[in-house]
Amino acid sequence: MSNIESVTMAHLGIDAGGTSTRAVVVTEAGECIGLGRSGSGNPISSGPTVAAASVRAATAEALAAADLPGSAVGTTAIAMAGGSAEDRVEASGTGVRSALLPLGVARTPTIEKDLLALYCSGSFEPDGYAMVSGTGAAAVRVADGDVVAICDGLGWLLGDDGSGFWVGREVVRAVAAALDGRGPRTALTGLLLSGLSLPEPGTTWARDHDGALPGLVAHVYDLPPVALARFAPLAFEAARADGRDGSDEVAAEIVDRAGHLLARTLSAVVTPEVPGPVVLGGSVLAHQPAVRDVLSAHLLEVGHPGALVVVPDGLAGAAVIALRRAGVVVDASVFARITTSLARFR
Amino acid sequence: MSNIESVTMAHLGIDAGGTSTRAVVVTEAGECIGLGRSGSGNPISSGPTVAAASVRAATAEALAAADLPGSAVGTTAIAMAGGSAEDRVEASGTGVRSALLPLGVARTPTIEKDLLALYCSGSFEPDGYAMVSGTGAAAVRVADGDVVAICDGLGWLLGDDGSGFWVGREVVRAVAAALDGRGPRTALTGLLLSGLSLPEPGTTWARDHDGALPGLVAHVYDLPPVALARFAPLAFEAARADGRDGSDEVAAEIVDRAGHLLARTLSAVVTPEVPGPVVLGGSVLAHQPAVRDVLSAHLLEVGHPGALVVVPDGLAGAAVIALRRAGVVVDASVFARITTSLARFR
Repeated sequence: MSNIESVTMAHLGIDAGGTSTRAVVVTEAGECIGLGRSGSGNPISSGPTVAAASVRAATAEALAAADLPGSAVGTTAIAMAGGSAEDRVEASGTGVRSALLPLGVARTPTIEKDLLALYCSGSFEPDGYAMVSGTGAAAVRVADGDVVAICDGLGWLLGDDGSGFWVGREVVRAVAAALDGRGPRTALTGLLLSGLSLPEPGTTWARDHDGALPGLVAHVYDLPPVALARFAPLAFEAARADGRDGSDEVAAEIVDRAGHLLARTLSAVVTPEVPGPVVLGGSVLAHQPAVRDVLSAHLLEVGHPGALVVVPDGLAGAAVIALRRAGVVVDASVFARITTSLARFR
Repeated sequence: MSNIESVTMAHLGIDAGGTSTRAVVVTEAGECIGLGRSGSGNPISSGPTVAAASVRAATAEALAAADLPGSAVGTTAIAMAGGSAEDRVEASGTGVRSALLPLGVARTPTIEKDLLALYCSGSFEPDGYAMVSGTGAAAVRVADGDVVAICDGLGWLLGDDGSGFWVGREVVRAVAAALDGRGPRTALTGLLLSGLSLPEPGTTWARDHDGALPGLVAHVYDLPPVALARFAPLAFEAARADGRDGSDEVAAEIVDRAGHLLARTLSAVVTPEVPGPVVLGGSVLAHQPAVRDVLSAHLLEVGHPGALVVVPDGLAGAAVIALRRAGVVVDASVFARITTSLARFR
């Protein structure tokens, strides 16, 4: 690639998540010059049609913001979970990669692991770790800029230990057990029932099979199972010691167990030969210091010296990967320019 | 009811389960004179059309075996889970009750709680307890021949602590964790993978994301969640100390936790004022002495003097209830006649 090309060409980083999709146009100097956002870009959770439309919409918005035609884009990196599903869809020309052709983006995008993008959002170093706990949970080891080991990410039924789904499921089960007279009373009951606009149990709260329980049962079985992740914040709220009634024991135990399960998953990929940073993402790890504290304590225990870095998503990392795939060396100063210029859009 | 009617009339007990339906024709003396069997009779798990057809088929077979027309049937008691669903279906004339009209059964059947029928399969006493752990799990207290308290039975997502689903889910999660390098090695891995005809992991068994794990993931997410109950027997097999390799620690812990969870559920309905027998049913409690041992130990601890009685299903109990609803007093000798005559059909 000539110098002239490398200064004039822009690249595209796309973070296609299950809830939302983000696209950024980045120069070879690391300047983010246009951002776009849209809905779910994951072909597994939302279907290939929705995913393709989201990726196209976010990209069109980012190109418009950068005032560039699609033909000005060199390399495109699309970070997503479940890349093999995208491969099957793309085989019939309806994947997220084909979705960029109408925008004039000529070069075929690369599909990147979402956890590699998460890692690259937090570090430009070639070696380290990334862990996500959002709706799902997984950890990876990165060596020489690529994922070399992965643990969990097996979904709500087989794995996702310590994820938002895991915590949310524990919340609704703890409330059901309390209403049922099997489990201890917990502040989670009031929080969950009022959140669902269900009548709070009165004096007959225990063994409440004619009271709040039928409403809770009807509500929960009406949801797709992964939607239980939406109840995870109740555990963090009730577990906080600064609440009106102090920390709730049941909630505190759920949060503590989530932290230990995440530590176990991270441990499975951590090795003394790779002392790099640990990049954390997903709503549970981004917003819950109590869970991060358990992880930090665990890393100290096993003598891992890496710093914990929290990132909002894999967008900066997708830009980093796009530049690298284009042959650009992303060093400390390019990386700093990416994150700083991107922060201005948020 | 005149004496002449009461000696000539036959009654019908039906146990409409999620997997199979059984119907028995019983005389007022307690003699079971005809048995019929068919498929799922539960309108929730199999839909109202299948449930109605199953109940009709089992009843037709029982009447034919007894050589009686439907018009000879006095009272019919149908035991099933989720009677309120049946009420909604029956309102439009397509429930299991209407299904018996074409057979000439004129009197409207009563819908009875499945756990009351289970209890009455094991005891003719008016007061006591019943607990089931099959695919699901629940416990009830019976007083004056009726269910007065219930615990759990909240389904796989919210409850069913210690059920076959609960155990089966623990099995697949333990195997996933072992293959993933998060959890300890367990004999469950070989049992599960060979049972599913998946390749057993070799030397690379840990962190086996390119080996056995993808096959396990594909298989498990292809099943309806409750079908995980089919893997429960693997835990009981691996936990037995007389196996080739001795008791597997991971499996033994799963079985032990299941027992303790069931004990907790039973405790929620046990009260010193009701010292009656504890009737147990469902595949986990019927076939797994290790789980029953945990329950027995727990009942001893809390000073409950009632005997544990294991029954195969709620069929004898449905016959008991049908007789009672017809005004027949089911005492020790009638009860013994029901169970003895029924045993001859099995």
